[in-house]
Amino acid sequence: MITEKFLEVLKDEGVVSIVSMGTEEPHIVNTWNSYLVLTPDERILIPAYAMRKTEKNTNQNNKIKLALGSRNVIGYNDYQGTGFVLEGTAKFFDSGAEYDMMKGKFPFLTRVLEVTVTSLKQML
Amino acid sequence: MITEKFLEVLKDEGVVSIVSMGTEEPHIVNTWNSYLVLTPDERILIPAYAMRKTEKNTNQNNKIKLALGSRNVIGYNDYQGTGFVLEGTAKFFDSGAEYDMMKGKFPFLTRVLEVTVTSLKQML
Repeated sequence: MITEKFLEVLKDEGVVSIVSMGTEEPHIVNTWNSYLVLTPDERILIPAYAMRKTEKNTNQNNKIKLALGSRNVIGYNDYQGTGFVLEGTAKFFDSGAEYDMMKGKFPFLTRVLEVTVTSLKQML
Repeated sequence: MITEKFLEVLKDEGVVSIVSMGTEEPHIVNTWNSYLVLTPDERILIPAYAMRKTEKNTNQNNKIKLALGSRNVIGYNDYQGTGFVLEGTAKFFDSGAEYDMMKGKFPFLTRVLEVTVTSLKQML
């Protein structure tokens, strides 16, 4: 499901929006393209420092959406820029081998947000 | 409400996420930092080409959230990067002096998305 174009975007720095489904309204937190770590089975691991409301929301409803892109990666029809909207399910964890690997890369994290991708759409 | 730091981010290119409140779940579309045009009274004008679902959603519920940032603008405590989550109300329009001004800048647009900012929060 993950494409070469998506991997290209991860290599170029930018803002990622993480949207969780609140009971009242959606909640947004941000991270950086360079903070997304892809596992061999194509889950996405993201260092979580605060993200308390995101965690609370995903405990109620684990559906999550991410948006990211880069103006420096060519999209469809040679357009200068591309972007993705990704849907998935979220889980937070704070121990285990993947936690330790992530803590090594991002010492500031207190938990890891794991996103299991269910849909990846290149928007342009 | 708009800050110098926010204006700095607009000058550096990046992805903006626009989140509308759907009846089922939030909907995300993206644009670029450089596409946000600030009016003297601090509304934000955004060129709309497709954005049909966003328009439909905002006709039902005009609340909208935007997230944007830049790794190249210094945030709080000298952090390398900053980001904003902005809340507001949305309206689409397709005629008038502001439409003509926007059409001059962005010939591809079919409507203009106007966001009246109700809250602007610098996240880091």
